[in-house]
Amino acid sequence: MDNSNKIGTYNFVAEPFHVDFTGHLTMGVLGNHLLNCAGFHASERGFGIAHVNEDNYTWVLSRLAIELDDLPAQYEPFSINTWVENVYRLFTDRNFELVNKDGKSIGYARSVWAMISMQSRKPADLLGLHGGSIVDYVCDKPCPIEKPGRIKVSSDQPADVITAKYSDIDINGHVNSIRYIEHILDLFPIDKFKEQRIRRFEMAYIAESYYGDTLSIYKEEKEAGCFDIEVRKNEGEVVCRSKIQFVPNPSE
Amino acid sequence: MDNSNKIGTYNFVAEPFHVDFTGHLTMGVLGNHLLNCAGFHASERGFGIAHVNEDNYTWVLSRLAIELDDLPAQYEPFSINTWVENVYRLFTDRNFELVNKDGKSIGYARSVWAMISMQSRKPADLLGLHGGSIVDYVCDKPCPIEKPGRIKVSSDQPADVITAKYSDIDINGHVNSIRYIEHILDLFPIDKFKEQRIRRFEMAYIAESYYGDTLSIYKEEKEAGCFDIEVRKNEGEVVCRSKIQFVPNPSE
Repeated sequence: MDNSNKIGTYNFVAEPFHVDFTGHLTMGVLGNHLLNCAGFHASERGFGIAHVNEDNYTWVLSRLAIELDDLPAQYEPFSINTWVENVYRLFTDRNFELVNKDGKSIGYARSVWAMISMQSRKPADLLGLHGGSIVDYVCDKPCPIEKPGRIKVSSDQPADVITAKYSDIDINGHVNSIRYIEHILDLFPIDKFKEQRIRRFEMAYIAESYYGDTLSIYKEEKEAGCFDIEVRKNEGEVVCRSKIQFVPNPSE
Repeated sequence: MDNSNKIGTYNFVAEPFHVDFTGHLTMGVLGNHLLNCAGFHASERGFGIAHVNEDNYTWVLSRLAIELDDLPAQYEPFSINTWVENVYRLFTDRNFELVNKDGKSIGYARSVWAMISMQSRKPADLLGLHGGSIVDYVCDKPCPIEKPGRIKVSSDQPADVITAKYSDIDINGHVNSIRYIEHILDLFPIDKFKEQRIRRFEMAYIAESYYGDTLSIYKEEKEAGCFDIEVRKNEGEVVCRSKIQFVPNPSE
């Protein structure tokens, strides 16, 4: 099977303000790049957000799971490959590979997307999208990481409570997907990131939150280094969940 | 005077997660791009941070002033020109021009930098830098905005108090210059950005703050729409100051 037109490859450099205190790309910036690559790849093939907007649909990110052996260091070039693994009626699976400056694969990611009507907010049939042509791009390149798993938090004592501010809000008037990642990582003391690194990071986006919403963030350590996290708005509805696996930093 | 090798031009696109709820590039992202362009331009000419690090010096941003007629909208390409206006013994002035997708100049910025010893943290003589060659790049391209002005805040009632978290900290272990911009803009209610836009934004970087520092942000409206802002750490030392001028949004 010829995958050449099915995989999109995009090049980046780890900018100074995009690395954390360890000098490695932040998870928020990596997430941003992944979502941009999804957009580039889809729009180059006729099913990007601008195209689907014309028919009053929009793409909604449902799940994101990232698994990493390493992250680019400041000023290092790196690239991201992305492709569509599956198209179902209501969801599509898009995968990513993170490639370092030496051409070595250092991580993978999986994402799950739905397309919804901008009027009814109801999911649309992806198999009919763009004359069904999205299925032409389904690609069998392997993505050797587990699919997003179940995340469950029963704590009723928030680890942090924040209010959604101007900088959190995107063009749709929602708290943006990347900001949740930053707020969730800010739950951890900086020493955690000195001694350990994030091996796996998952997000499940469930509902939108808005300017002024109170976001309570609940955190539970399920096993050593593995945290399930839940963000609830205004002490009620779950907005998103996250799962983070830390492992000892080999350089320590 | 031939300025062709003196001006660096860098191209960007306004990414979805880099625009605010109005759909325009955020000031934080613009600031990040300006500082990156400064880095690109300097390193291409032999006096970038990697070069000066070899002699145990580093660049420190002291002032930034941005004045805007407009900002790129989501997905719009734009470019930034940058050049050195002056080199003094202890400071250098670097200017920027923001150019929209149609090639029209829509804003300018001025920045002031010092080079300091990484050991003593004392300023170094710029006229001796790289065999004095930095002065070869001084350029007379006009930058038709005022130099950074005086910012004075006498309020003793903070508008907000935050704690510096993991996501705020850069590779040097300091709260990063861009995060201050975001925290300062988050002082304002979102409605302010609906009815008005930022015409001019200034930052004066005075001292470093660190992980865990309590940052108290003081704000004073000096005249209608013009705010002087001061960030103090741990109820003492001034970390940075900012001046923001809002003007009515013509599209409202």
